[in-house]
Amino acid sequence: MASEPENPPIAIAPANGGAAEGEGEGKTLSKKAAKKEAMKLEKLKRQQEQAAAAAAAANSTEADPLSGNYGEVPLEELQSKAVSGWKWTEIGSLNEELKDKEVLIRGRVQTIRAVGKSIAFLVLREKGCTVQCVATVAPELVSRQMVKFATGLSRESHVDIEGIVFVPSVPIKGTSQQVEIQVRKLFCISKAVPNLPINIEDAVRSESEIEKALQAGEQLVRVNQDTRLNYRVLDMRTPANQGIFRIQCQVENIFRQFLLSEGFVGIHTPKLIAGSSEGGSAVFKLDYKGQPACLAQSPQLHKQMAICGDFGRVFEIGPVFRAEDSYTHRHLCEFTGLDVEMEIKEHYFEVLDIVDRLFVTMFDNLNENCQKELEAIRKQYPFEPLKYLRKTLRLTFKEGVQMLKEAGIEVDPLDNSMWANWF
Amino acid sequence: MASEPENPPIAIAPANGGAAEGEGEGKTLSKKAAKKEAMKLEKLKRQQEQAAAAAAAANSTEADPLSGNYGEVPLEELQSKAVSGWKWTEIGSLNEELKDKEVLIRGRVQTIRAVGKSIAFLVLREKGCTVQCVATVAPELVSRQMVKFATGLSRESHVDIEGIVFVPSVPIKGTSQQVEIQVRKLFCISKAVPNLPINIEDAVRSESEIEKALQAGEQLVRVNQDTRLNYRVLDMRTPANQGIFRIQCQVENIFRQFLLSEGFVGIHTPKLIAGSSEGGSAVFKLDYKGQPACLAQSPQLHKQMAICGDFGRVFEIGPVFRAEDSYTHRHLCEFTGLDVEMEIKEHYFEVLDIVDRLFVTMFDNLNENCQKELEAIRKQYPFEPLKYLRKTLRLTFKEGVQMLKEAGIEVDPLDNSMWANWF
Repeated sequence: MASEPENPPIAIAPANGGAAEGEGEGKTLSKKAAKKEAMKLEKLKRQQEQAAAAAAAANSTEADPLSGNYGEVPLEELQSKAVSGWKWTEIGSLNEELKDKEVLIRGRVQTIRAVGKSIAFLVLREKGCTVQCVATVAPELVSRQMVKFATGLSRESHVDIEGIVFVPSVPIKGTSQQVEIQVRKLFCISKAVPNLPINIEDAVRSESEIEKALQAGEQLVRVNQDTRLNYRVLDMRTPANQGIFRIQCQVENIFRQFLLSEGFVGIHTPKLIAGSSEGGSAVFKLDYKGQPACLAQSPQLHKQMAICGDFGRVFEIGPVFRAEDSYTHRHLCEFTGLDVEMEIKEHYFEVLDIVDRLFVTMFDNLNENCQKELEAIRKQYPFEPLKYLRKTLRLTFKEGVQMLKEAGIEVDPLDNSMWANWF
Repeated sequence: MASEPENPPIAIAPANGGAAEGEGEGKTLSKKAAKKEAMKLEKLKRQQEQAAAAAAAANSTEADPLSGNYGEVPLEELQSKAVSGWKWTEIGSLNEELKDKEVLIRGRVQTIRAVGKSIAFLVLREKGCTVQCVATVAPELVSRQMVKFATGLSRESHVDIEGIVFVPSVPIKGTSQQVEIQVRKLFCISKAVPNLPINIEDAVRSESEIEKALQAGEQLVRVNQDTRLNYRVLDMRTPANQGIFRIQCQVENIFRQFLLSEGFVGIHTPKLIAGSSEGGSAVFKLDYKGQPACLAQSPQLHKQMAICGDFGRVFEIGPVFRAEDSYTHRHLCEFTGLDVEMEIKEHYFEVLDIVDRLFVTMFDNLNENCQKELEAIRKQYPFEPLKYLRKTLRLTFKEGVQMLKEAGIEVDPLDNSMWANWF
């Protein structure tokens, strides 16, 4: 499959299509502005028709009467020229309810497969969700040249596809959405380079899939961690990474909402401070306009100041800096801390109560609202569903020591140095 | 008024009072644990009674049969000894509906005023909310010694007060809550030093109040900015500062919730980076384990990577570091940024639409849900209510230039350097 089509695609903007024009936005535009907009669009349309005609004329080998339905959109046509009123449907929301409806979608071309010269399959991806699109040669709808244009696209190119939602009788493998789009129009709005360091198709593969194929005598591409990190932007496009980031956002959100509902106040404390926040050695030092300064290793001091400042209960979500030389695989010198500080009225159980409920709320909420994301992660990195008690188990120190003894681990409860190694 | 009472208050824990014991928590405790707890409390009570008896015997000058109703609680009695099941009422939630009810409140003593030897007025404060408490000598309820103990408390001491809610016929000036507490029990759980660098009573005063008093020939204490900053923890206790922090938290919350509802994902990007994020000179440099590193001046690069990584719409709330030498009064080398990045489908109006709606949502929400906080700020720092359009005014560049011209300001629309000074 050539990475560039032989006949350069005709430069034409989606404005020329206009199939979705009826859906107009309008509501936010005044009548006058709408009229102005319409005139602008009319002008744009005329210009594009002229350009298309000229391009078609230049393309002497095989003139295509359907050339207005596909092609590359030149950059200048994409830069805030006009508000067309078109409505895009998110790939993640394509479902059987849209059967036979016409939709306009925008996404990256994840995979391209040609079946002879008359059918092209494209998997389009948006925010980690994928859908199969099929361009089949049909009179007055899809030309041979259009199929050729489709198969000639480079992977990860950004395209707009207008098409009809079709519900196949057999489930579709390998895409997140269970419908197929029958392509009517196809415009490339941003062409990716032909050779990418990572193919997303390869990057989504789990280790077990690779192993299984290897046992069957087939070698599948494995994208190593260093390649992933060197081309982080591409690797972030995998459904698993989309899921991880979205769940991370959700965790923060539940943390915040739960604490707010418990009377906590969110604060932001200084990260550039005059001394070290705790301990001392593993701190990043810097010059603050001639004075020595440190990056905060913890919001501890300022959280406590907030409590003494009568806030009662505070939390902070923000970066924490620790310059430790670590020899583990998972140490970070910078991480995002979810931090809590509260006044205790009588007993430290009050803190435990909050923490217990926080975690149960968090797990419940993720299970309820992040099924899709958890599934996407599980597919690439298999894991067991988390088990947790509705009421968190609470052991006394004595009970803990007793359990260790029963498990054959001899402990001296009074030896502090020993306990330090347990956490 | 002496800062220390002449007869040292009898050391007795609130556990000895027990008036609120009936309200028991219980629900979170198993029967066995509850029994254990009860036994523990019983033991504690015995110990305290013995201590009280011993103290009373030592205090030979004037024995008080009501000595169990007030006093200082020694530190060891406060440290997670037992879960009593007492229920505290937040000062901010004290209102007329609680009329004649018995409540237990905890707060700091903001002001103390004695009327002869038989009445003491205390203003108690919690999280910026204040309530007036009155201890009046009454047989078998409040002793003369108790009133003396109350008037001898140092300001900002932390106390527990048990009392009856009384609704006065005339509005109470100077406190946020419009009820009065008739003191029955009073325990100091943490004594403040007798002389504080800032009295909160003084710190809450507005400039206009001070000016007005001055014109009337009275000089009121003015707490200057440097004193406020040197004793930040005390200054944070003013209702205005409590309001500012709470509104800041609310602003962040509305920003986040609005953007989440619009399909944005919250991210956290690195603050320690290898190069400068934008421009170059005004950056904090540091040594990252032998390699040069900078503090991020903006999440710009990483936000854009997230967009290229298929997140579509992202936002970040986090610290931004700018090492600029500024000669203004309001420059910060470190501030919390509320940052947004989004894919534009067609036109930059899509960004303007989001920003418009975000601000209107934010203003509406603050007006609805932060009345109390806005009022507290307005009292110390008067301001006019914010006026804003439901639909944000949008001017074209041309219209803007025209308006400037009409206002007599000559501008050259093509001179970029000139526009730079406008922002």
